[in-house]
Amino acid sequence: MPSSVSAPARLLDGINSPQDIRKLNVAQLNELAAEIREVIVATVANNGGHLAPSLGVVELTLALHFVFDTPHDKLIWDVGHQSYAHKIVTGRRERFATLRQYQGLSGFPKFKESAYDAFETGHSSTSISAALGITLAKTLKKDSRRAIAVIGDGSMTAGLAFEALNHAGHLDKDLIVILNDNEMSISPNVGALSSFLSRKLTGKTMRRVKAHLVEKLQISDVGENILNILRKSEESFKSFFTPGMLFEAFKFNYIGPIDGHNLEDLIETLETVRDNSQGPMLIHVLTKKGKGYDPAESNPDIFHGIGPFDVASGKPNGSAKTPSYTQVFGDTLVGMAQRDSRIVAISAAMVSGTGLSGFAKTYPDRFFDVGIAEQHAVTFAAGLAVEGLRPVVAIYSTFFQRALDQVIHDICIPNLPVTLAIDRAGVVGDDGPTHHGVFDLSFLRYIPNLVLMAPKDELELQRMLATALAHNGPVALRYPRGVGCGATLSDNPEPLPIGKGEVLREGDDILLLPVGNRVQAALEAAQILALQGVGCAVINPRFIKPLDAELICHWARHTGRVVTVEDNARLGGFGSSVLELFSRHGLHQLRTTLLGHPDHFVEHGPQATLWGNSAIDAPAIASAALTLLQEL
Amino acid sequence: MPSSVSAPARLLDGINSPQDIRKLNVAQLNELAAEIREVIVATVANNGGHLAPSLGVVELTLALHFVFDTPHDKLIWDVGHQSYAHKIVTGRRERFATLRQYQGLSGFPKFKESAYDAFETGHSSTSISAALGITLAKTLKKDSRRAIAVIGDGSMTAGLAFEALNHAGHLDKDLIVILNDNEMSISPNVGALSSFLSRKLTGKTMRRVKAHLVEKLQISDVGENILNILRKSEESFKSFFTPGMLFEAFKFNYIGPIDGHNLEDLIETLETVRDNSQGPMLIHVLTKKGKGYDPAESNPDIFHGIGPFDVASGKPNGSAKTPSYTQVFGDTLVGMAQRDSRIVAISAAMVSGTGLSGFAKTYPDRFFDVGIAEQHAVTFAAGLAVEGLRPVVAIYSTFFQRALDQVIHDICIPNLPVTLAIDRAGVVGDDGPTHHGVFDLSFLRYIPNLVLMAPKDELELQRMLATALAHNGPVALRYPRGVGCGATLSDNPEPLPIGKGEVLREGDDILLLPVGNRVQAALEAAQILALQGVGCAVINPRFIKPLDAELICHWARHTGRVVTVEDNARLGGFGSSVLELFSRHGLHQLRTTLLGHPDHFVEHGPQATLWGNSAIDAPAIASAALTLLQEL
Repeated sequence: MPSSVSAPARLLDGINSPQDIRKLNVAQLNELAAEIREVIVATVANNGGHLAPSLGVVELTLALHFVFDTPHDKLIWDVGHQSYAHKIVTGRRERFATLRQYQGLSGFPKFKESAYDAFETGHSSTSISAALGITLAKTLKKDSRRAIAVIGDGSMTAGLAFEALNHAGHLDKDLIVILNDNEMSISPNVGALSSFLSRKLTGKTMRRVKAHLVEKLQISDVGENILNILRKSEESFKSFFTPGMLFEAFKFNYIGPIDGHNLEDLIETLETVRDNSQGPMLIHVLTKKGKGYDPAESNPDIFHGIGPFDVASGKPNGSAKTPSYTQVFGDTLVGMAQRDSRIVAISAAMVSGTGLSGFAKTYPDRFFDVGIAEQHAVTFAAGLAVEGLRPVVAIYSTFFQRALDQVIHDICIPNLPVTLAIDRAGVVGDDGPTHHGVFDLSFLRYIPNLVLMAPKDELELQRMLATALAHNGPVALRYPRGVGCGATLSDNPEPLPIGKGEVLREGDDILLLPVGNRVQAALEAAQILALQGVGCAVINPRFIKPLDAELICHWARHTGRVVTVEDNARLGGFGSSVLELFSRHGLHQLRTTLLGHPDHFVEHGPQATLWGNSAIDAPAIASAALTLLQEL
Repeated sequence: MPSSVSAPARLLDGINSPQDIRKLNVAQLNELAAEIREVIVATVANNGGHLAPSLGVVELTLALHFVFDTPHDKLIWDVGHQSYAHKIVTGRRERFATLRQYQGLSGFPKFKESAYDAFETGHSSTSISAALGITLAKTLKKDSRRAIAVIGDGSMTAGLAFEALNHAGHLDKDLIVILNDNEMSISPNVGALSSFLSRKLTGKTMRRVKAHLVEKLQISDVGENILNILRKSEESFKSFFTPGMLFEAFKFNYIGPIDGHNLEDLIETLETVRDNSQGPMLIHVLTKKGKGYDPAESNPDIFHGIGPFDVASGKPNGSAKTPSYTQVFGDTLVGMAQRDSRIVAISAAMVSGTGLSGFAKTYPDRFFDVGIAEQHAVTFAAGLAVEGLRPVVAIYSTFFQRALDQVIHDICIPNLPVTLAIDRAGVVGDDGPTHHGVFDLSFLRYIPNLVLMAPKDELELQRMLATALAHNGPVALRYPRGVGCGATLSDNPEPLPIGKGEVLREGDDILLLPVGNRVQAALEAAQILALQGVGCAVINPRFIKPLDAELICHWARHTGRVVTVEDNARLGGFGSSVLELFSRHGLHQLRTTLLGHPDHFVEHGPQATLWGNSAIDAPAIASAALTLLQEL
């Protein structure tokens, strides 16, 4: 534990619940905020985590718990990666050093951790919907407590947030939404909404002109008409917009913008809202990501989510060796785009996370960051493909869950040549169940027209990208978080024949059928088994769809025993597609074992630990093979 | 074919492509519009279809093809069910009588039908994304043609449309969006946006006050401040909003509202936009659903999508006999809600379609129509569940594809007691591939914590609903379009034991394992087979998840041969879960056949035809069983 955590006479040591916050004055709260920042920086420096978002909302967290009667009033943190201060002041101070560590505190709100975690979050833009549901339920139960959603300006770009705003405005209940505007989601924010929010008000000018106008005109019932005039005037109406108007269009009452690091202002505003507001209310709070820690303030993108680092210098511990799958994907795409002008790339607010920063710099006209808008990313790609371009949509596996309908309806039914680059497929590690990408094989493989692949190493990723871009139809390509085995890369990777796998090892006793990042583990298992005299065939199918029926059936018949392995749910994924293949080809009498993640949500922890827990690492594969061999 | 279609001397008979439209004057275009309406009414009266939406946009269709150089300029019909006039004037007049008939014209735009169908649609709110993609591609290709999205006010409530608006405003390209505002999507529209749009302008007042204001104030640079004053005035700012402001907030230029049935106005406006506009443009057009056919104008909800009817009276042909699954669901829920005050219901703009009209009337405070917002519907339900309520979210199977992430992330990870009522599961018939619900078993069954069921008849639907509402966790319940076998209903249905199936028939030769609406077909197949001396066991598993492992494995062992049948894709669905079960339990040596929809998108046509084509009806099941029995 860092030394600062055990320093004497800290206010923080007396904060065991928000009740203790409510006893402090503003000066003390400011002191407490500084102490909390120190703990957050020290802990994330050790454990990695979402530093910049959490540092940005320390005062807001204290003000909310000071003013509202949590946990009876319900506080919903959109995304939830900014909830570190919230965790520290709601009884988890002592355990905070275990943040994001295996079996330690989650980096996101969790029901099982605390009654103060009012809704489980992880993906963006759910908070207004959830808060609205809670508000409506409380109305029905005649419970006058409040629900408060805290949502970033980036999260506001997702359609889900809009759907919720629209419904909330219609229902007109006492819902409170705090817009945490740091002018940046993960990548700098995009979209019309973003530039809209940045037009700040100046109170003084406002008051002056108000007096002037009231004097000149006796406006009472001509309000609408005045606006119409302005609208129709030569000068574009756009310049007349103020940050609150969009929300007022959705029938929210708007207050702000207010300084999110000024505790006095925050508390006063929140108290006013608590005591006086009626109907849906939006409070616009301006915060700075990384506030209070210089390296994070200067580089909020790098410090958004970061591994362990040195507090003094802000430099990450250790140094990158082999390039990650993500990097190989991004670099390879830049090379291909040079040779094929039809290639364009799309990110949903994860430009650097998906390895596309280089592409964006090299081909700014052919790169589109659409904001946190996975649905739009896919349908927009369909539009580009209709005109003969070759769009590549790079999104994390877990976020592709948001775009299932668009993949089916807008890409695969019309059979358009769009490449879905599914990053972070498989378990992602410390972010846990909301972020693991362990379902994509299951939710994609049944879709007609879609070709689905997973590379065994970085070179194969390159070749699969070439395959995808050469194919005249929809292709999905899933690859894991982190580094591969460090395969030598190609400058001009060749496409693979679609639907053809490769035999990596011949053997007579049992067939190992691993997919993607499990190929290496299966090869290791084969070596372990060889030492025990077991002859393993190992096939890399490369394609989850279409399967290489001939090759797989041949070796399955030859060995009579098959173990499939995937970094995906055991249900409905690759293994299940192999069973279907055997059924279709009348290969009964085969003994089969399917290895994959079991039928519960996988917790957070190091990838290797999780692979071990789910029995899909080399020793577990070897053990499963032996068990299958022992069956009569 | 109705007699009107072959009447002599019609203008329509000379319209073989939009080129022919461009030769007509406004009077002729109005005459043509009337002729087209007659054809649409006559054809839909015969074939069924989306009457009211298509009647509403006849003039708009003609004006668009008159002004724009289709198919080079690309016209994208959101949802696409309003494209009948478009089909008639783009070379499909002769084939229009085959609309929605098996192997006839689709009810939606299709690439394979016509070069004028610029994007395939079916689900709502995709058109702006697609048009933006097309526009961007054209920009990159230095092609100055336009993309025009025609989107209804209902479709504007979906998050996808908002994501696209936000991105389009940011990119600032020459995109044209036509807002087809009929003040109603399928059910009367909900949401703040709706009431916002309905505040119509009156041009006269506007001009008068403009003159007044310009005289009184020399406004030039004080625009923003004037608005601020209005915002801050005692009177709510809400009343100052005009329809265009929301779109202008997203940096669209706004024109409108204009009369969508006045061809002169439409053509003039579209020509102005075509020749002068720069940047994203929204044209607000007011139309009347069902325009020109009195019964449809009076009852646009009933005539939104309708079966065959009598043109003179507007009365549907035939009469309803047994209640549909949908009706049974709705009626049963009303009864249960009376006994359990925790039950609330949610629809996504399909109140009558999902059978919830009665619930909405009986329990207005406990019913929520969220608009076309499936994502929000599910997360909102999660919020309600957090507070101890028992929300039931009723959405068609195909539209649940929009809410996969919310089901996984907001319902199943936190394990909340939300019931997903999945209507229209299986093939839906005439609406075709965009609307068939043949993937839900595949995209739901791998999700941890989710209980997944399908009833064999209406009584079992009732009991499953009772089971879902008694269960303290997430449940999905899928049932087909149309009527069942007419089982006697219960006033107070009892819950079923979770994970327990039932033996419907004992037999020694082969096990039939049908799910949901295929149970009846399998029982018929068993009778066919019995006549040939084959003894079939038939099990209704009731639960796709958790499977009744003991019962299924017992009968599988007993017979050695298993045929699974589902009105779902053959890949990744129920059959595949049965294969996993056998693998897990070491039941090798079983011969299995999986029946379900093959790995291509199923076309439109009568349900029975489609079941036959996919070989999941009684004769096909019997035939598959015989084939399996003949294997050595």
